[in-house]
Amino acid sequence: MTDGIKLKAPGENESSPRIGVVLGSLSDLDRVKGIWPVLERFAVPYEVTVISAHRTPDVLREYCESAPSRGIQLIVGCAGLSAALPGAIASLTDIPVIGLPVASGPLNGVDALLAMAQMPPGVPVATTGINGAANAGLLAVRILAMSNPGLRRQLALYREHLAGETVKQADSLLERGLPGWERGR
Amino acid sequence: MTDGIKLKAPGENESSPRIGVVLGSLSDLDRVKGIWPVLERFAVPYEVTVISAHRTPDVLREYCESAPSRGIQLIVGCAGLSAALPGAIASLTDIPVIGLPVASGPLNGVDALLAMAQMPPGVPVATTGINGAANAGLLAVRILAMSNPGLRRQLALYREHLAGETVKQADSLLERGLPGWERGR
Amino acid sequence: MTDGIKLKAPGENESSPRIGVVLGSLSDLDRVKGIWPVLERFAVPYEVTVISAHRTPDVLREYCESAPSRGIQLIVGCAGLSAALPGAIASLTDIPVIGLPVASGPLNGVDALLAMAQMPPGVPVATTGINGAANAGLLAVRILAMSNPGLRRQLALYREHLAGETVKQADSLLERGLPGWERGR
Amino acid sequence: MTDGIKLKAPGENESSPRIGVVLGSLSDLDRVKGIWPVLERFAVPYEVTVISAHRTPDVLREYCESAPSRGIQLIVGCAGLSAALPGAIASLTDIPVIGLPVASGPLNGVDALLAMAQMPPGVPVATTGINGAANAGLLAVRILAMSNPGLRRQLALYREHLAGETVKQADSLLERGLPGWERGR
Amino acid sequence: MTDGIKLKAPGENESSPRIGVVLGSLSDLDRVKGIWPVLERFAVPYEVTVISAHRTPDVLREYCESAPSRGIQLIVGCAGLSAALPGAIASLTDIPVIGLPVASGPLNGVDALLAMAQMPPGVPVATTGINGAANAGLLAVRILAMSNPGLRRQLALYREHLAGETVKQADSLLERGLPGWERGR
Amino acid sequence: MTDGIKLKAPGENESSPRIGVVLGSLSDLDRVKGIWPVLERFAVPYEVTVISAHRTPDVLREYCESAPSRGIQLIVGCAGLSAALPGAIASLTDIPVIGLPVASGPLNGVDALLAMAQMPPGVPVATTGINGAANAGLLAVRILAMSNPGLRRQLALYREHLAGETVKQADSLLERGLPGWERGR
Amino acid sequence: MTDGIKLKAPGENESSPRIGVVLGSLSDLDRVKGIWPVLERFAVPYEVTVISAHRTPDVLREYCESAPSRGIQLIVGCAGLSAALPGAIASLTDIPVIGLPVASGPLNGVDALLAMAQMPPGVPVATTGINGAANAGLLAVRILAMSNPGLRRQLALYREHLAGETVKQADSLLERGLPGWERGR
Amino acid sequence: MTDGIKLKAPGENESSPRIGVVLGSLSDLDRVKGIWPVLERFAVPYEVTVISAHRTPDVLREYCESAPSRGIQLIVGCAGLSAALPGAIASLTDIPVIGLPVASGPLNGVDALLAMAQMPPGVPVATTGINGAANAGLLAVRILAMSNPGLRRQLALYREHLAGETVKQADSLLERGLPGWERGR
Repeated sequence: MTDGIKLKAPGENESSPRIGVVLGSLSDLDRVKGIWPVLERFAVPYEVTVISAHRTPDVLREYCESAPSRGIQLIVGCAGLSAALPGAIASLTDIPVIGLPVASGPLNGVDALLAMAQMPPGVPVATTGINGAANAGLLAVRILAMSNPGLRRQLALYREHLAGETVKQADSLLERGLPGWERGR
Repeated sequence: MTDGIKLKAPGENESSPRIGVVLGSLSDLDRVKGIWPVLERFAVPYEVTVISAHRTPDVLREYCESAPSRGIQLIVGCAGLSAALPGAIASLTDIPVIGLPVASGPLNGVDALLAMAQMPPGVPVATTGINGAANAGLLAVRILAMSNPGLRRQLALYREHLAGETVKQADSLLERGLPGWERGR
Repeated sequence: MTDGIKLKAPGENESSPRIGVVLGSLSDLDRVKGIWPVLERFAVPYEVTVISAHRTPDVLREYCESAPSRGIQLIVGCAGLSAALPGAIASLTDIPVIGLPVASGPLNGVDALLAMAQMPPGVPVATTGINGAANAGLLAVRILAMSNPGLRRQLALYREHLAGETVKQADSLLERGLPGWERGR
Repeated sequence: MTDGIKLKAPGENESSPRIGVVLGSLSDLDRVKGIWPVLERFAVPYEVTVISAHRTPDVLREYCESAPSRGIQLIVGCAGLSAALPGAIASLTDIPVIGLPVASGPLNGVDALLAMAQMPPGVPVATTGINGAANAGLLAVRILAMSNPGLRRQLALYREHLAGETVKQADSLLERGLPGWERGR
Repeated sequence: MTDGIKLKAPGENESSPRIGVVLGSLSDLDRVKGIWPVLERFAVPYEVTVISAHRTPDVLREYCESAPSRGIQLIVGCAGLSAALPGAIASLTDIPVIGLPVASGPLNGVDALLAMAQMPPGVPVATTGINGAANAGLLAVRILAMSNPGLRRQLALYREHLAGETVKQADSLLERGLPGWERGR
Repeated sequence: MTDGIKLKAPGENESSPRIGVVLGSLSDLDRVKGIWPVLERFAVPYEVTVISAHRTPDVLREYCESAPSRGIQLIVGCAGLSAALPGAIASLTDIPVIGLPVASGPLNGVDALLAMAQMPPGVPVATTGINGAANAGLLAVRILAMSNPGLRRQLALYREHLAGETVKQADSLLERGLPGWERGR
Repeated sequence: MTDGIKLKAPGENESSPRIGVVLGSLSDLDRVKGIWPVLERFAVPYEVTVISAHRTPDVLREYCESAPSRGIQLIVGCAGLSAALPGAIASLTDIPVIGLPVASGPLNGVDALLAMAQMPPGVPVATTGINGAANAGLLAVRILAMSNPGLRRQLALYREHLAGETVKQADSLLERGLPGWERGR
Repeated sequence: MTDGIKLKAPGENESSPRIGVVLGSLSDLDRVKGIWPVLERFAVPYEVTVISAHRTPDVLREYCESAPSRGIQLIVGCAGLSAALPGAIASLTDIPVIGLPVASGPLNGVDALLAMAQMPPGVPVATTGINGAANAGLLAVRILAMSNPGLRRQLALYREHLAGETVKQADSLLERGLPGWERGR
């Protein structure tokens, strides 16, 4: 039906991608953009593509079957509404699947969250929060770090970085005072 | 992976089945049993089988691709939880798909209802109510009746029958009075 | 009460309409506009009108009773809030009824979805997603195609078209890279 | 379609009924039984019948049109699931309609509550709580009391009665102590 | 605590008000404005005031106790959030109380709807839909019409008017065609 | 209307009660019974009574107004359904009010939780979880401990006790193994 | 990991803070700003800081452990999404904890409300409404007033103030009439 | 506060555990029992313990900090209600955390599901369905299999096994017919 699947990591890193991010629709691109900075911070090679579980089931099958041989170790499926994509991926491969529910309709992503989380026994999807793109990326990094001491060190630094960011927020609040307050009042 | 799909209408009618009822799991059999009396009242030949969208995607594909040539005109997909089955069927065939959400988990079928109704554009599922087995069957009959004057006459009679049943309920209430009341009080 | 119902297919096709689209209120016109392109793509003649189940019950009855003789084979009822329209249609005719819930109030269409899906046994409504206008149209086409080989061929082409659109999205992402990325980085 | 509507107040009071209680299905009889004691306490003559908005729309029309001439001043519509009954009544008559949503399906009456409350402008339903039979009856009495000083006096006594019941509960708790406690401990 | 309650019908009709509309907060004035045109169309004299069940419980008590002697026959309580106002009114008077839940917070009125509908037995509130101001007004008119033949005639005319409005919508759609269509295409 | 309010701490401690627990209905007694062991563990004198915000508003007013002079420092209001009780208490007194929502109807306490939490500005209720009786009691103790070093020491011990209980659970699991396992397998 | 916690009351009152307001993220500052005017009206010294339960668990522990010795008597934890902050505080100290759920994601604060209210037994959080900043502040004042007669007097005045504000709203409505009305019409 | 944490894999496998399953309360043991058969089928060594995020935060910290050195590669956190456990674990370690929400209260696990999924950015939890114990176990196995070809082969066999089970269900249905049917009818 289609002339097959062409994939290249968007960043064209020399290293082959280890994480495959699959969008159910290009229209969700903006809602999942929090994944990229996380994966790039940890220098994890990834690829991004658009495959619809319902419109291009053949492409999805081909993608899932070829993923291991292409070096993909983890797939992140992003979808809204009835959001069958990550479950369909998990039914076609044994690679772990992270599901990122996207708020793209009148139910604000509750439908997508339930569809991803409430999978039947035997076909697990690791579901993150609605629009939780950064966490989907970070969960992928944590999983890759299980067999990668370098990533583990980076994760420890990142944890410190996040803590530092929060402390900075506290400091800035302390310094500036509450909005509308005069300094040193 | 599996040695293929064997199908025979459970009632072995001489006529080949026109409606295919697919359960996501045999454990839902009891919750969908309201379909059979409806289809049999209207003498619509049907078949029933169990195919999991997630566990047996190959069987599902085979089922959907062979359905038209086997004379199946309409498919009813019954599932609970994330309930991807009817959507998956609708992605593999152009035959109309009725989705029957089943209350089989802690969310009482709300998850299944949303998963079936909130399909992305291009892949419609005709969703009925949670555990709405009789309506799933009757919707199938109504659709078949579009090109079948005999069924249309039966539907008109059935409508009268249902009206009569309600009138009988009213009469029985009138006759017996409210529970705990003495007649003619 | 009213001086009856005047109906003409909006496009005044020579062929008489086979699908009747009924809006509960003209104010929902914008939310259901996704139906028209689908029906026109498949050249399915249709008519559109506004009938309120609650404000014009007589008109609704007249519409439903005359529908078969006017050649209407399928009715799509579009409504928001308590959304009784498609159920009322299904109670007045045996023609299959598609229910399109519309997000027109503070509950964002959840009320309309439940009201359409949770019909009592005997009066089925084929419910689509909230604001799922395109799917309501496509479901109608799939049903008509059951007895129309030409439509079936068109549906197969449409399926390929949708697949192609998704593949194009993937190609465009591959070519352009992620937004904000320099090509060939 | 049906041989018409036969109505007699279940208690066969000599006075003609002023309140019409309509059940969508006889199966809800047990869930609405809290209405009867309230109406009888206030000696308000009433009738009870079963009419389905969807299965017997003709009977419903006949019921609503004849209600004023039969002396019915107020109608209580009881239904579960998509619960179109009270709205349908309110669309066929200008008599005030009380809607009593009944928890008769997997959604525990949330569907019925929304269907009754979220009526479109122009067709009001006075909705009570899910399974709130006693309040449906009492609301009817309050409304009748607007033009009936005797009922107003009874309502005042009833208010005192309810207050007294609560005070008795408090006294009994004071006397008996908490369960499992020895008196005078 | 306060220097009492001053009330005058906003329109200063010569006739004394028969319906009291009570807002929990002046900030809801815009959301309930659909009541006024309905009450004025039927020339039902009414008064509007602001009383908070929680901030001015004394004023509320005084209002409820004086209402009957001032000729108030029906009270409409409008509130958002936990929306205790109509229930509090119903606990202080036997006058029928209509509850109008208002969408004034992050839960979009679901909280107010439940708080009004789910009253304990003995204290009924006739709940309308979220932001259902017109229906709250019309329900009041229907109730007043029970003992007012003139209002009943007006209600019959209003019903025809509403039906006519819907028919006009249908006619306009028929005439203009769907937006974006050329006439006579 | 009632002959006033009689109150005595159920346990008749010599010390006068400092915490007043008010049930909206005696029927909730079983659902709130987790409060008593907590209050008794910390030897906090308390009283329990039944007052309905809607049925006995006069008693509630009397209770709230007399509470400070009777030494009550904190009131726990327990109610189900629309659960106006704690909000009504908070509107009648400045004593802090803890709201304990009870699951006593078809909505499983969601209605009560929202009604207590979503109070309008100016009338705070400290809401605990649905059926969260133990936490309601413990919250009361924590608040009393603010000015009571003895209670603070007891709370520290209680914290250790709870930690110990969890550790015991872990030890017991370690010792017994998972159910159905043979020890030392 | 971090170089510790620096705290100073934002207003640098000479008196040491008695209430600690902790934000899970500086991005919630705007949503909780209703707390400050309340605390300042009652001249309750407070401090504000940002600590994340998840990103800076060490800082949180340090904060909670040092709070009593720094004179903090009550902690208000403000958070959105899974909103673990107030529960985490309540697990690290016996100081009473007020939880203020913030609507900062696609679920509009329902997630945060449930996460704060539905705490397990032994770890109570006094939950207020979603975005209910003013009530969080006022609840804190009510609790402090238990051992502070001056605050109690101020609370009584504040109650009168709020009542007066509502009466003023009523007066203004009476004077100006409904919007769009001509005065004295 | 506690005398530390003693851990031994329940099955005392010679190999040290690689997966740590942590229950928030021993009372959830029955609801998570679907994990054990999965982990044992794949011969993945695991340990089970009970640690409460709120009651034993010190033990949790100790557990998380020692986990890597003890060889734990993945932690499954099981909890109900506000279900902070897996998020707390994810805040204390960089090991990937699977969250298994448990239906242990009146909200049937919706609270736990939201609390686990809706984590703030930076602290991901891989959430499974409510009571989805088998999927929590299988997700763990899939993740371990990323660096374990033996497990990958077993997963492929397991996939075939699940497919075979579904095919067997279909065969059994074909053979036995629908319940209540006579074979060969």
